[in-house]
Amino acid sequence: MNQDYIQQDPWSIIEEGFDAEQVKSSESLFSMGNGAMGQRANFEEQYSGPTFQGSYIAGVYYPDKTRVGWWKNGYPEYFAKVLNAPNWIGINVEINGEPLDLATCKQVRDFRRELNMQEGWYARSFTAVLPNNVEVGVRAQRILSLAMDELGAIRYQVQVLNQDAEVVLGPYLDGGITNEDSNWDDKFWNITAITGQGHRAFLEAHTMKTHFETCTYMQAQVVHEGKPVALKETEKTETGIVLRYAQKVKKGTAVALTKFGGYTVSRNHDAKALVSAAQSVLDQATEMGFEALLEEQKKAWAAIWEMSDITITGDVKAQQGIRFNIFQLNQTYLGTDSRLNIGPKGFTGEKYGGSTYWDTEAYCIPFYMATKDAQVARKLLKYRYNHLQKAIENAEKLGFVNGAALYPMVTMNGEECHNEWEITFEEIHRNGAIAFAIYNYFRYTGDYSYIPEMGLEVLIGIARFWQQRVNFSQDKGKYVMLGVTGPNEYENNVNNNWYTNYLAKWCLEYTLEQLYKVEEGYPDDHGRVVGKTKLTEEECEAWREVANNLYFPYTEKHKVFLQQDGFLDKVLLPAAELPKAERPINQKWSWDRILRSPYIKQADVLQGFYFFEDHFTQEELERHFDFYEPLTVHESSLSPCVHSIQAAKLGRMDQAYAFYLRTSRLDLDDYNKEVEEGLHITSMAGTWMSIVEGFGGMRLINDKLSFTPQLPKQWDAFSFKVNFRDRIIKVTVSHKGSSFYLTGTTEMSIRVNGKKVQLYPGKTVDA
Amino acid sequence: MNQDYIQQDPWSIIEEGFDAEQVKSSESLFSMGNGAMGQRANFEEQYSGPTFQGSYIAGVYYPDKTRVGWWKNGYPEYFAKVLNAPNWIGINVEINGEPLDLATCKQVRDFRRELNMQEGWYARSFTAVLPNNVEVGVRAQRILSLAMDELGAIRYQVQVLNQDAEVVLGPYLDGGITNEDSNWDDKFWNITAITGQGHRAFLEAHTMKTHFETCTYMQAQVVHEGKPVALKETEKTETGIVLRYAQKVKKGTAVALTKFGGYTVSRNHDAKALVSAAQSVLDQATEMGFEALLEEQKKAWAAIWEMSDITITGDVKAQQGIRFNIFQLNQTYLGTDSRLNIGPKGFTGEKYGGSTYWDTEAYCIPFYMATKDAQVARKLLKYRYNHLQKAIENAEKLGFVNGAALYPMVTMNGEECHNEWEITFEEIHRNGAIAFAIYNYFRYTGDYSYIPEMGLEVLIGIARFWQQRVNFSQDKGKYVMLGVTGPNEYENNVNNNWYTNYLAKWCLEYTLEQLYKVEEGYPDDHGRVVGKTKLTEEECEAWREVANNLYFPYTEKHKVFLQQDGFLDKVLLPAAELPKAERPINQKWSWDRILRSPYIKQADVLQGFYFFEDHFTQEELERHFDFYEPLTVHESSLSPCVHSIQAAKLGRMDQAYAFYLRTSRLDLDDYNKEVEEGLHITSMAGTWMSIVEGFGGMRLINDKLSFTPQLPKQWDAFSFKVNFRDRIIKVTVSHKGSSFYLTGTTEMSIRVNGKKVQLYPGKTVDA
Repeated sequence: MNQDYIQQDPWSIIEEGFDAEQVKSSESLFSMGNGAMGQRANFEEQYSGPTFQGSYIAGVYYPDKTRVGWWKNGYPEYFAKVLNAPNWIGINVEINGEPLDLATCKQVRDFRRELNMQEGWYARSFTAVLPNNVEVGVRAQRILSLAMDELGAIRYQVQVLNQDAEVVLGPYLDGGITNEDSNWDDKFWNITAITGQGHRAFLEAHTMKTHFETCTYMQAQVVHEGKPVALKETEKTETGIVLRYAQKVKKGTAVALTKFGGYTVSRNHDAKALVSAAQSVLDQATEMGFEALLEEQKKAWAAIWEMSDITITGDVKAQQGIRFNIFQLNQTYLGTDSRLNIGPKGFTGEKYGGSTYWDTEAYCIPFYMATKDAQVARKLLKYRYNHLQKAIENAEKLGFVNGAALYPMVTMNGEECHNEWEITFEEIHRNGAIAFAIYNYFRYTGDYSYIPEMGLEVLIGIARFWQQRVNFSQDKGKYVMLGVTGPNEYENNVNNNWYTNYLAKWCLEYTLEQLYKVEEGYPDDHGRVVGKTKLTEEECEAWREVANNLYFPYTEKHKVFLQQDGFLDKVLLPAAELPKAERPINQKWSWDRILRSPYIKQADVLQGFYFFEDHFTQEELERHFDFYEPLTVHESSLSPCVHSIQAAKLGRMDQAYAFYLRTSRLDLDDYNKEVEEGLHITSMAGTWMSIVEGFGGMRLINDKLSFTPQLPKQWDAFSFKVNFRDRIIKVTVSHKGSSFYLTGTTEMSIRVNGKKVQLYPGKTVDA
Repeated sequence: MNQDYIQQDPWSIIEEGFDAEQVKSSESLFSMGNGAMGQRANFEEQYSGPTFQGSYIAGVYYPDKTRVGWWKNGYPEYFAKVLNAPNWIGINVEINGEPLDLATCKQVRDFRRELNMQEGWYARSFTAVLPNNVEVGVRAQRILSLAMDELGAIRYQVQVLNQDAEVVLGPYLDGGITNEDSNWDDKFWNITAITGQGHRAFLEAHTMKTHFETCTYMQAQVVHEGKPVALKETEKTETGIVLRYAQKVKKGTAVALTKFGGYTVSRNHDAKALVSAAQSVLDQATEMGFEALLEEQKKAWAAIWEMSDITITGDVKAQQGIRFNIFQLNQTYLGTDSRLNIGPKGFTGEKYGGSTYWDTEAYCIPFYMATKDAQVARKLLKYRYNHLQKAIENAEKLGFVNGAALYPMVTMNGEECHNEWEITFEEIHRNGAIAFAIYNYFRYTGDYSYIPEMGLEVLIGIARFWQQRVNFSQDKGKYVMLGVTGPNEYENNVNNNWYTNYLAKWCLEYTLEQLYKVEEGYPDDHGRVVGKTKLTEEECEAWREVANNLYFPYTEKHKVFLQQDGFLDKVLLPAAELPKAERPINQKWSWDRILRSPYIKQADVLQGFYFFEDHFTQEELERHFDFYEPLTVHESSLSPCVHSIQAAKLGRMDQAYAFYLRTSRLDLDDYNKEVEEGLHITSMAGTWMSIVEGFGGMRLINDKLSFTPQLPKQWDAFSFKVNFRDRIIKVTVSHKGSSFYLTGTTEMSIRVNGKKVQLYPGKTVDA
């Protein structure tokens, strides 16, 4: 049974009624972020019940010492880990000397949370009876400003309901925080200064080892019956500072605190000017005031939705689900900084240590390309270019030479952050996804400039890796790739994973092709890159030789490519025949049993068919889908979306819809029983793909957008927008058919169900 | 460069001169044990330099919480770990108030250690100048009594050389000890009582969780110029107790302490009677006195050597090496208790957590069978019978059913103590070694009784496991075994490891054969076992079906069995062609590179050829040896011995000798640069096998001993003894040929170089 306590609403995530059991789930679901920082939806006031406290600053990490059962050569000794940052949201509340703590209150009623996705704010309200019988009504509202991304703002109001009482509000900064997933309980932060300046306070700290300098700051403004309440006292401890405001409040009246806070960091400012940078932010915020900041926030979110909204009519839960996905992706990464990337848990948890997986290239880039300016995807590509040297060092550590690059499985700073040998050293297909994203970026945006400027170097490093990673099998008379793990992590250390081999061959060929194109079109860049990389003709020959003679496991009997050598030795019983009690197998089966089973965690051969759709016929896709999908247990959040798209392509809308459901409300309904740990941010881009590429059938064919829209019968209609080379096309699909609306100034032609359709700015065209 | 500071001597291990750099190595090399307890050769007096303190009680372990990088289903949550035990050897020494500590002395000269293997004692002497300029001469001698295995004894004498001085001797018990390899810094011991009774003291403690009750005890007797020195004071702390004896000593005279100590444990006594059990031991020891205990010790060791000595003339280092191996094996396990077993590090270190590996069955049992009474090997077999239920539970945890048994890779109490999935779940050939040992035991000793009484149940559990572990491959039309790790741990998660498949087939057939034999000869046992295990005809049919249709990878081109599917896809470059700088590959190469290389850590296919020698022709052995040995890097201590035996069989004596050298002085010369962590006890049995089965060519053929002796040209002669069915045969091989001497009362026939030779008691026969 999945959870279902979230109220249905097209634009908001709503929880009604206080349930201590749901606090950690809701802390994840109601998380906020603005690309530069984020936080779990922890209560402002103290809470002694089970909670997972988390505040995160983009790009601030710590190299934690590796913990393993048994050391393997090649493991990183340290790896960068997302770091829990000092807390600026906290507000101690005392009523007649009794702390307000929902875990100890005699009664909590009318508890309500709302995360308004349309406007980008989070609100919470409740009535509580404290142990001392004072009854209070609390209303809190919070934003993390998109316009000023170092700033957050909270409005926190306490109304005393059943008697007169003294209310003490104690907004604070707390640097005494830890990571739940710390390996060795290291001290991650060093606090260097804590300063109170009237209603303002500043906590300066740097991370150990990495020395990211940060200033966590706040400003409080407390008002009672229209009048400011004076600061009573400031208390500093070794790890924090609290400002205290005391006010005697008459029954029925309220005291209200506006708290501004956030972080200034050395990535964006001189390390010595962090306090003054914070002062400027506070000056500006104070001048605007909470209301104006909120209005600005609504406008910023309106602009995002204008580009990226998907509407679904006739199914509120589906509507809420897809918007939640789009909202969280935008909270996590806004494309303003190429030093940042999209962590699988965004700012909603610590798990998975590092920030960047191949998810970014395989799943997120299509979303960002279609819903933002092309510069955003380009920044994500540049991120990998910036890490090229580290990828070369990573490959060297594993014994590769001559500039071969192996990008890490997980990273914050370009270094590997993962330590299971079967993944760290063997799940090398990630290298291919990075090359594919370069191809995909140019295919979609038409912007070739990335390749001569940066991408070609990345491609050369990757091609060198593949050529060194294969070996010639005398037995097969072909090049083989031994000891790899494919996207299907339920197979480890296999030989000739078809997907990996296919990507490798494609990478080698694509790199050779780009070398030629750059030489022809950008001779200066070509000279620079060849000089820098010391690329030789012999190397290119070796790449060609491998690409032309790479081995691909295939079965004549079934006429399908084999996921890997020996796959047919397995007992190929469909997953549907497994007893329900044994699902999910990753929770019910031992690892060895999973490994020798035929069951597939996520698209593997079919991931290749997704990337290189145009290399295969519809009939080949169908044959492979019918062979592999029944063996696929979809126990990765990244699996259903690819299958949804392929099922839709095969006209199997019921199946496509079932896969879609599984991805779109994964977290809201907590399918995997783990939402407490944080949200699955990157797979949310897959949900978006399921609609746009699946139901919408959007493809890029010969430089033109093409659509084959299909409406799930469960819906009345759906619409989405894509930004294609600076023109926004809104696609609406309903029972009546599909229509296309073009924004901008110039007309364009697209293809719909294979036919050419001309679009004109400001006009709706049915097709 | 290997270490070479150990003096050459046929019977002793000797170190001369104090070198702080060698202290940890020597603590391992001079370790003592008596089967029931053991200790590293830590100094009695305090030492502030680098040291690895270790005292161990056989069978006393702690379930430490598993530490892994990433959790896999099926891992044990806790596993038993060898536990560092309270220290009873310690003696604080103060001269004029200055502690004697070799790390702080102004000068240390004439430092000498000797581990006398012939007589079973350890001695240490030195002259030191303390920081306060007092010069002292110290002589210490220690035994762990074989006759009274709860008792150890130390004689410790301090002579003041350059002035009069006050000497304070403080013999103590210390329960404040930790394990270096603790996973989570748990507290392992709970001290329940510390008692001083005059010159005696007792520290009662139990292990946490496992509640092994122990009493660590001591008695001190201090003498100065023939007169007892009175106890000055007793000091107790939370974790220990020290007795203090102060004596003013004239220049040139000495004060001498005799300290008895050791452990009484709840495995052998009522938990409430441990102190009184210790009192009895002390009473008995006091009555005998140190000298008589030492004489008894010499006799006990003489008896052991009488059965097990190997002499080598013409090569002192070789002689010292083989005796060191035999000595350490006897220090570790004496076969008195079927609840104990042979840990890979014995009592010399903590590493490898648990105590029992497949090393016991594959390597140690032949040594114990031939150098001890048959009961000793039988106890080792019984150990596994006692763990059968745990092995069944272990298999259940991995998804097996119906009484299938998977013995753990490493264990103290029958539970799995290992957590690398590729080994824990996949290195399942260990199950086969346990069945093989049952066969081997009967083959050698002629004692069938173990099988109907206990072994048959073990075999049934193992047969059930194999039958469930394979699956039918439609593709091959054969049963296959997917996802295993063979003895060669440089391959992980492979399909159809030939050795494992071969063992599985043999186990199934052998179990069926024993079922028949037991039914015929021991119908009651048969009925009992079939009833208890609920064995059915259908199951036996299924075993037969698998045994008859199991797949074995084979290459027609090379005419050899393949180590596993796909082995020929590797680049089969001989290990000899690897650059020296890249060896050993387990230190120089990344794990993925090792995995996809053809290099073999230890005998794998050849291990099968060793076990089942009579299944293959000499020509087949040669072909497989020539195919696999060049690819073998022998980076396991268990590899060279098997190859030495096979090279000898192939008449390649130079190669056989080279392999022998690598195993015999592995620790004395510290080939692997890790002797500090402890000794490689189990591989020492392999060294013994290299001589007896390799150079001696001992085999059992049709119930008769057979020899094909060959003398390494580097030696003048060698001799060994074997106990064969209660008759001791001494075999001497020299340039003149070989001779055989039979002890006992009845004649017997053996085969030498294929010819029958009759032996008569008390006579030497040349052959």
